Amino acid sequence: MKRLDLLEAVIGYSFTDISLLEQALTHRSHSARHNERLEFLGDSVLNFVVASMLYRRFDRIDEGDLSRLRANLVKQSALADIAQRLSLSDYLRLGEGELKSGGFRRPSILADSLEAIFGAVFLDAGFDAAERVISRQYEALLIDVDPKTLGKDPKTLLQELLQGRKLDLPVYTVVATHGAAHDQMFDIECSIAKLEILVRASGSSRRAAEQSAATQAIAELELKFPARAARQSRQRRSTQLRLPVAVPQENSR
Amino acid sequence: MKRLDLLEAVIGYSFTDISLLEQALTHRSHSARHNERLEFLGDSVLNFVVASMLYRRFDRIDEGDLSRLRANLVKQSALADIAQRLSLSDYLRLGEGELKSGGFRRPSILADSLEAIFGAVFLDAGFDAAERVISRQYEALLIDVDPKTLGKDPKTLLQELLQGRKLDLPVYTVVATHGAAHDQMFDIECSIAKLEILVRASGSSRRAAEQSAATQAIAELELKFPARAARQSRQRRSTQLRLPVAVPQENSR
Repeated sequence: MKRLDLLEAVIGYSFTDISLLEQALTHRSHSARHNERLEFLGDSVLNFVVASMLYRRFDRIDEGDLSRLRANLVKQSALADIAQRLSLSDYLRLGEGELKSGGFRRPSILADSLEAIFGAVFLDAGFDAAERVISRQYEALLIDVDPKTLGKDPKTLLQELLQGRKLDLPVYTVVATHGAAHDQMFDIECSIAKLEILVRASGSSRRAAEQSAATQAIAELELKFPARAARQSRQRRSTQLRLPVAVPQENSR
Repeated sequence: MKRLDLLEAVIGYSFTDISLLEQALTHRSHSARHNERLEFLGDSVLNFVVASMLYRRFDRIDEGDLSRLRANLVKQSALADIAQRLSLSDYLRLGEGELKSGGFRRPSILADSLEAIFGAVFLDAGFDAAERVISRQYEALLIDVDPKTLGKDPKTLLQELLQGRKLDLPVYTVVATHGAAHDQMFDIECSIAKLEILVRASGSSRRAAEQSAATQAIAELELKFPARAARQSRQRRSTQLRLPVAVPQENSR
């Protein structure tokens, strides 16, 4: 296991009581003083800090959209991504069984440990410290958030894109099914007649196949009518100008 | 509508920007500057503060129990109870329709407005102020929390009571159904043979009837074997001694 002061450096916080950080990194398979209570605390401070960041950054979107954005930013896979960036798996304390089965790579274990660290910082030094540690991880993510799309499923997105052009809804049709009843695959066609778009996708449920077809239809749509994509990437660039500008001369060596 | 300084007095906080409190009290039926975004923020600061209070107060219960306790303390009916204690309905700003249909008494509107007030305090003065306002409402509630029972449904509670006495699980039997298919009532018997307990209850679903029968069975159990109930009320009394003692001479006039 790597030295904890390296982890403290990447999260940007030094513990007064280092045993709190040790506990945050300890899975229940390892020992009795494990991280599950800290995870409970960390999950709730994380939810609050991200809520407050979203509230301030997006001052015109309604609470339904705020909830959707937050759910997307604090979901397991998003947390596991952050944990991976921090190389958290190098510091985890797992029991024998979990070690052998590669538990240090499992998204749930990574996400839970990251939440537990946030909880540990809160216990060690209070809310402001926890907020700083969480903000440090989320500020960059929030810059890329598009409140119109993040966390929406492809069918909803496609529908909104078409409604924005005053076009009819896409038509989804089951064109074939394969396999035995307990292991069926569905082939779905998604058609947008007015735009001459017709795509096809498979999935293990009708819903999964439809979502996959919608993803393809959105790709076709943006290929045929690049206007929207271009506008978005312009917005993205102008947003990024608000970032503190790094010193490019030094970084480019 | 009553003067807002009276409300500030009962929540124990005076706003720098009183328009935040006004917004927190404004339902979407009243005007465009309504409380739904504040409610999003307030819900998450509330969840966090209650999580942190529970974490500190109950240092030996696991995160599953912490979650159950919190869910129970921040659920709509619990918030509506607090709102009623604060006479929040005297201060709400509702549209015509909601006013006429008695919206100021509706638990969802009361609960949402209370959460919005917590969010408004956070925006006005930061986390510590919000924590103080929330703690003030929850400290007394937490004293009465029994982590073994709060928020558990009657069937689960009954099962745990019987397991604690090494007795078999209760047996639930449908003894009759009444009414048409879309409007059926179920009569359920709950039997605990070893203790000679047999109770009967009705409900619009099998599950509802079983829960109601379990409630009755628990009552019978505590009537027949008062030991557990007596122990609990002793605990309750000794817990209450930890409260700051009010000045009884003055209060009794």
